[in-house]
Amino acid sequence: MRWSDGFIAADWGTTNRRAYLIDASGKCVDEFEDGKGVLNVPEGDFPQAVAEIRERLGDKPLLLAGMIGSNRGWIEASYVACPAGLDEVAGALVWAGQREAIVPGVSYLDEERADVMRGEEVQLLGAVGTDLIPRDCLVCHPGTHNKWAVVSDGRIESFRTVMTGELYNLLREYSILSELLQGDASPDEAFRRGARHGLGHGEIQAELFSVRARVLLGQAPREEACGYASGLLIGSDVRIGLGGNEPGEIVVMGRPELTELYAEAIREAGLRAIELDGEQCFLAGVARIAERI
Amino acid sequence: MRWSDGFIAADWGTTNRRAYLIDASGKCVDEFEDGKGVLNVPEGDFPQAVAEIRERLGDKPLLLAGMIGSNRGWIEASYVACPAGLDEVAGALVWAGQREAIVPGVSYLDEERADVMRGEEVQLLGAVGTDLIPRDCLVCHPGTHNKWAVVSDGRIESFRTVMTGELYNLLREYSILSELLQGDASPDEAFRRGARHGLGHGEIQAELFSVRARVLLGQAPREEACGYASGLLIGSDVRIGLGGNEPGEIVVMGRPELTELYAEAIREAGLRAIELDGEQCFLAGVARIAERI
Repeated sequence: MRWSDGFIAADWGTTNRRAYLIDASGKCVDEFEDGKGVLNVPEGDFPQAVAEIRERLGDKPLLLAGMIGSNRGWIEASYVACPAGLDEVAGALVWAGQREAIVPGVSYLDEERADVMRGEEVQLLGAVGTDLIPRDCLVCHPGTHNKWAVVSDGRIESFRTVMTGELYNLLREYSILSELLQGDASPDEAFRRGARHGLGHGEIQAELFSVRARVLLGQAPREEACGYASGLLIGSDVRIGLGGNEPGEIVVMGRPELTELYAEAIREAGLRAIELDGEQCFLAGVARIAERI
Repeated sequence: MRWSDGFIAADWGTTNRRAYLIDASGKCVDEFEDGKGVLNVPEGDFPQAVAEIRERLGDKPLLLAGMIGSNRGWIEASYVACPAGLDEVAGALVWAGQREAIVPGVSYLDEERADVMRGEEVQLLGAVGTDLIPRDCLVCHPGTHNKWAVVSDGRIESFRTVMTGELYNLLREYSILSELLQGDASPDEAFRRGARHGLGHGEIQAELFSVRARVLLGQAPREEACGYASGLLIGSDVRIGLGGNEPGEIVVMGRPELTELYAEAIREAGLRAIELDGEQCFLAGVARIAERI
């Protein structure tokens, strides 16, 4: 069986997975999403969970990306070190079977920092390999763990993770701010005010408490707390991602409801944001990797 | 009934409460602690919850401090604005009955910031009023929400809350770092390394992810992650509390297992830490307030 006759690609994360059937012409012709993230599959049950994908989408070769290659997944696929391009990542696929390839994650290490990603590299390199983004640029990839990636000559040169999405979810679910954060943030004036503050102030663990104090002391309306807090976190995230630089434009890649908020905060920083849909980038990425098999 | 014949004081928080019987000589002669924090008492049940305290410690006047005076407590006691000393706080007691006084919290407001405290003011002003600390000093009061208070001429001049304790608990209970944070932090070399990093770097939502990446990439032993992360958070907290100043010495007031860690981080910043037991300061505070009734 040749991969050019079509294949199935899956973005298999911690809490859910999304699988796509790619036909011989490279088009996505069928797909599904379910809650079988790696944490919801008992050890030993991965062959069955993989078989289910073929039952639903057809008996094709499988290209699996994301946490499925982690130590909590099916088979651990070691990280490829930066700088990492399509050739490096495709060259380090781990084969779980003759027709089941797992995409490795990417790691970054210098004297100061250590960092890892799993799954985002497919989207990032897919966008580069399909000329959706320049071969030299700064990419912001929001999600549970936002990745700021420096792309240089078409490869991931370095990157840094900011835990904004996870932090926001923890605060919303379990913290003293929980009640105040029950709405949905949108790129409105409260969000922009929070973003401006976050862009200028690094002390997020103090600024967050002030969200509550401002409401208690009548300094801010309760209904703006959610937007302001979201702006604060995302503005602070953008400040970290820029690291004192002003790149002019930033590519923001991911789910549209998130890229919209990050793009707004980036504009508050006086920079241009180019939004890209993460799913399209993922499909571009798996196509570029499959070509190299 | 006169307060000088003895009274009961309670530090009534969100998740638990601690009550003390103070005799006519000012000594604490009996006490108990239970899980009836304000969130665990249904609305309308506060009179009963108060009556239980008297059943256990005697039929004495009651001085109640902490979240019992919040909008989730028995009766809301409005905040006293900074600068707030013993006279201002004692003068703003809210009387739930003829023999039941509630201590108000303290608020801080300027053009930039809004902040609130409830309960810590009793300890802070108790320490001042009993000459346990100078009338001009910087106090660090670790807990779920650490308070950095500037004490000036014996009054709380301003303060700032850092959500370190709550953040640490959220990360330990629910986050991707959960597994790594199951130990207990102690002031060891891993803690000091984290503290030094936190003292120098403000980007806590990025630095925290690196705790995991460092272990995954073999850059740090798994068993040091908990101490390092605790040091990172507390070092970052101290950096915020200092706000670029170098006061020489800092009073650290609270539970000994916490003041020990903060004192270590303060020493890593090259400053002197004076540790005080929060319970002793609370008892001093209620005595000074009761004198003013």
